[in-house]
Amino acid sequence: MKHQVKVIAFDADDTLWVNEPFFQETEQKFCALLEDYLPHHTVSQELFKVEMQNLALYGYGAKAFMLSMVETVLRVTNNTANPAILEKTIEYGKELLAKPIELLDGVEEVLRALHGKFRLVVATKGDLLDQERKLMKSGLEPFFHHIEIMSDKQEKDYQKLIRHLDIQPAEFLMLGNSLKSDVLPVLNIGGWGVHVPYHTTWAHERIDHKVEHERFIHIEKITEIVPQLLP
Amino acid sequence: MKHQVKVIAFDADDTLWVNEPFFQETEQKFCALLEDYLPHHTVSQELFKVEMQNLALYGYGAKAFMLSMVETVLRVTNNTANPAILEKTIEYGKELLAKPIELLDGVEEVLRALHGKFRLVVATKGDLLDQERKLMKSGLEPFFHHIEIMSDKQEKDYQKLIRHLDIQPAEFLMLGNSLKSDVLPVLNIGGWGVHVPYHTTWAHERIDHKVEHERFIHIEKITEIVPQLLP
Repeated sequence: MKHQVKVIAFDADDTLWVNEPFFQETEQKFCALLEDYLPHHTVSQELFKVEMQNLALYGYGAKAFMLSMVETVLRVTNNTANPAILEKTIEYGKELLAKPIELLDGVEEVLRALHGKFRLVVATKGDLLDQERKLMKSGLEPFFHHIEIMSDKQEKDYQKLIRHLDIQPAEFLMLGNSLKSDVLPVLNIGGWGVHVPYHTTWAHERIDHKVEHERFIHIEKITEIVPQLLP
Repeated sequence: MKHQVKVIAFDADDTLWVNEPFFQETEQKFCALLEDYLPHHTVSQELFKVEMQNLALYGYGAKAFMLSMVETVLRVTNNTANPAILEKTIEYGKELLAKPIELLDGVEEVLRALHGKFRLVVATKGDLLDQERKLMKSGLEPFFHHIEIMSDKQEKDYQKLIRHLDIQPAEFLMLGNSLKSDVLPVLNIGGWGVHVPYHTTWAHERIDHKVEHERFIHIEKITEIVPQLLP
């Protein structure tokens, strides 16, 4: 069964390293900039609305997030914002892009155990340059065959990835913190999906039903995948 | 010699389709927004400065350009800009992202002639989602094995690409409008470089010396590559 697996793809943000908490921290600081106009949670809601409206045009990642913050400032202040707020917004975005990498517990141990036994790849959404830079800074690059930056993680995107990897769906296992992006589409096209929850998830990635599937594996800690894959 | 070539990589912007004129048109409209503060060419210079300062952090592409325009507004107006200028800036950026695709003359004919005889790929810088969308809109996708979005086009990036394609450097030919990005680094790592000039080039991509190399081919029109490669 799962001993057919040849390629293991790891999601990056909040699977290999900390990400969402940095975005949330930026968002908190951003909301504080606008507290003379609207309460925090309303700014947050407006920002999320703008992000969703821009998703098809901008895609995922920190630059899209920055542009949506700029647009949110203009929108919630009805074009009356003090430009210094926008200057701060750009500054916070740049700080976000320059964050150091904090590896999650057990990640290095898992990669060390699986390296050489499977082809390991990173499969992530977001900004190309930003994700490549994060992988470089992480020190994990030697474990991976390569990094695949995907514009989205829907079934068609995984089908393209699998064709590109030149393998069968059943030979592909995806491991990540998002049931919606890392697990469900992969199960649907015939691959294996491993869910390792992270303590916080972006609203856009949340789903509210349980997953039951013969090729689905739920683990609490990333290290639990090793005994599942190695004899 | 060049009959070893197995993979032909095409640059996209201003090689397959119109790009730089759209950026220039956006920049002209952007400069006009700020004409109460500074003359056009000074705004242009300031924008270019901001772009170069942000290049390492943002990379290439339309979203980076948009963020640099926003920052330029704040900078040249000393944070006194009317926010409506920023609203227009975002609007112009979104229009740029949504431009229709205009194929350059001869492109389809060349791809039709080479398809099936070589592995054809697109190798381009810029925003991942934006470039994938442009390829989709272009109708050229069926000719290509896949699209490689590169965060940069330096020697190390081409070396990575060639490893990824699983070929030797001498089996790789890159065709594009930028001597600096599409030709010189490829020649330096042992591949073939074909230059097809476009009538306008972004300042960052310009070089001012002549190229002479045994694996360099200069053509005036993209269609001239076909008799060079096919017997």
